[in-house]
Amino acid sequence: MQRSATDWLALSLLPGMGAARLAELAASDPPWPDGWLAALPRPAAQALRLYLEHPAQSPLAARLATEREWLAASPERHLLHPDHPAWPETLGQIADPPPVLWALGDLDALEAPRLAMVGTRRPTREGSGNAAGFARGLAERGWCVVSGMALGVDGIAQQAALDAGGCSVAVLGCGVDVVYPARHRCLHERLRGSGGLLLSEHPPGTRARAGFFPRRNRIITGLSRGVLVVEAAERSGSLVSARLAAEQGREVFALPGSIHNPQASGCLHLIREGAALVRGVDDILAELAQWSVTPVVNRRAPEASTDTDPLLAWLSDTPTPVDALVDLSGLAVSDCQRRLLALELEGRASQAAGGWVRLPTSSGA
Amino acid sequence: MQRSATDWLALSLLPGMGAARLAELAASDPPWPDGWLAALPRPAAQALRLYLEHPAQSPLAARLATEREWLAASPERHLLHPDHPAWPETLGQIADPPPVLWALGDLDALEAPRLAMVGTRRPTREGSGNAAGFARGLAERGWCVVSGMALGVDGIAQQAALDAGGCSVAVLGCGVDVVYPARHRCLHERLRGSGGLLLSEHPPGTRARAGFFPRRNRIITGLSRGVLVVEAAERSGSLVSARLAAEQGREVFALPGSIHNPQASGCLHLIREGAALVRGVDDILAELAQWSVTPVVNRRAPEASTDTDPLLAWLSDTPTPVDALVDLSGLAVSDCQRRLLALELEGRASQAAGGWVRLPTSSGA
Repeated sequence: MQRSATDWLALSLLPGMGAARLAELAASDPPWPDGWLAALPRPAAQALRLYLEHPAQSPLAARLATEREWLAASPERHLLHPDHPAWPETLGQIADPPPVLWALGDLDALEAPRLAMVGTRRPTREGSGNAAGFARGLAERGWCVVSGMALGVDGIAQQAALDAGGCSVAVLGCGVDVVYPARHRCLHERLRGSGGLLLSEHPPGTRARAGFFPRRNRIITGLSRGVLVVEAAERSGSLVSARLAAEQGREVFALPGSIHNPQASGCLHLIREGAALVRGVDDILAELAQWSVTPVVNRRAPEASTDTDPLLAWLSDTPTPVDALVDLSGLAVSDCQRRLLALELEGRASQAAGGWVRLPTSSGA
Repeated sequence: MQRSATDWLALSLLPGMGAARLAELAASDPPWPDGWLAALPRPAAQALRLYLEHPAQSPLAARLATEREWLAASPERHLLHPDHPAWPETLGQIADPPPVLWALGDLDALEAPRLAMVGTRRPTREGSGNAAGFARGLAERGWCVVSGMALGVDGIAQQAALDAGGCSVAVLGCGVDVVYPARHRCLHERLRGSGGLLLSEHPPGTRARAGFFPRRNRIITGLSRGVLVVEAAERSGSLVSARLAAEQGREVFALPGSIHNPQASGCLHLIREGAALVRGVDDILAELAQWSVTPVVNRRAPEASTDTDPLLAWLSDTPTPVDALVDLSGLAVSDCQRRLLALELEGRASQAAGGWVRLPTSSGA
């Protein structure tokens, strides 16, 4: 029997029930609700019975009302659960899938095959260019880029996927409505729009906590057919994610680099451990041929007005040289310069020592 | 029974006898000379019998006299053959070892375990630095660097091994007394000295021919426990050597690099095919642990007079910047500058636009 979003929310809130236990029950799925009530530990069974028979008296009532109110306030808000038509089936393959996922954005983003892209928060210039280039290539071939919206490789890849008219899913270590890191306010906004989706196992309003990020990573790789490590130091979270992905049966891909680049050392280590060395998107898709889709170039046309010029996303308070912007955006030098000029004329960007900076707008982003 | 160098030379000159056939016979080694005479094809058997019974009447006599005269003229000249105490046993493991090897230089160079280093004639600056750095590291750990004395990676690696007081063996596609390429006159000279050795399956005086080089490569890898490809394009002789080495049962090592460096593409290809990705000399030695020797740092002290200053080998008609010289030589910046100044005062080097050049000397190298 299909349970409602509220039923799943209630299940996720039952006392003494971990995500792993709930996933186990969902997998065996005894008759609802009697089989579940019989299988649950006593306190959880009592709470579920009260919720089902006298919902108003349930201690969960207030919490459920709050969450339902949040969900009802906008059509871009969703609660995904194992009975939801958009529930990503790949999550069923991991050991401890989240019982529910709060979602903000475009559920169509879950229709494409997914690849995770992860890497350092401080990529080299080459690493940044590779993050953008691979994300663009994946988007052009109809793949969705999954990442954690962190600074560095995560954000660059997600931004580039959307710029190319593709899809991107961010899995957060906070509520989907919480912008973390703050510098990714603009990217967060874009991930709520067409082709983008924000996901979290934490309820709306939950603040980021260090302890949430390692567990968040299991969802990033659990959602994906494989994970591409773009640049990573020898001891880094990206390597942990890659090993986790391998344990989950996912393909692990790594970009090679110079033996003198500390940000490549983690990738070289992974390749020595058996990760596939990739030279381009085609090397990845050849491995994942069974999941590939018919290439859809510019599934969504990138927006063209200067108001949402993709270059804006690459500009910040720190001056960025034009050649770096060319690398990052994938635009031709002439196109890049033309757009920068247009942005300058509109007072949205300006030249500074060492490159271009973004100017604050009075209207908000 | 032990045969003399002249016997082996005669065997190598018998009509209608290929190297492979001779190697086969040497491996089974029937009683000498009757078993050999019985096993040889008729024309070869007749020629061998004449040589053994009436050497003066043998058509080989003139040729043998010439070669013996060459060998006798200097103690640095040798003819290696399967009965010679310095014959490299690893050659016995390949399908078609040369029947004899002319040698010029220090036979002690054959006492250390050997690794082949190969790569492009036009390395990038990083590739040049890696060639020098790995050769130095191998030399410091008591390994001998085997290569082909070609421009680029070959020459840089061999030069650096000698500079570090280590050993290096060059296998040539011409006679050991022929300097090819001409720009390596100085390196050829050094390879005749302490720690160096020049080898060839072609008699002294043989000019380089394009067809000799592919066969020369089987000796480079046949002499070695493994081969390290430093930088190589996707279609290159180095890749052919690497595949040949794998067929010979040798370990194949490759240095990773950027996916945007065409000179790294061959290495990335090899790694995808199963070559070991190496980040440093230790990764190589860990694979070859069974052959390793007790580290002998500066087994031979590098010569210190400016007359043979190792920097000279890195200088040419084309200006080389100081920082490139630092990379290549492994010297400290201050040491490098001090030596350059000394060389300039002696009129052996001079500054030009873009770096330092070598000046011709009236006395010859």
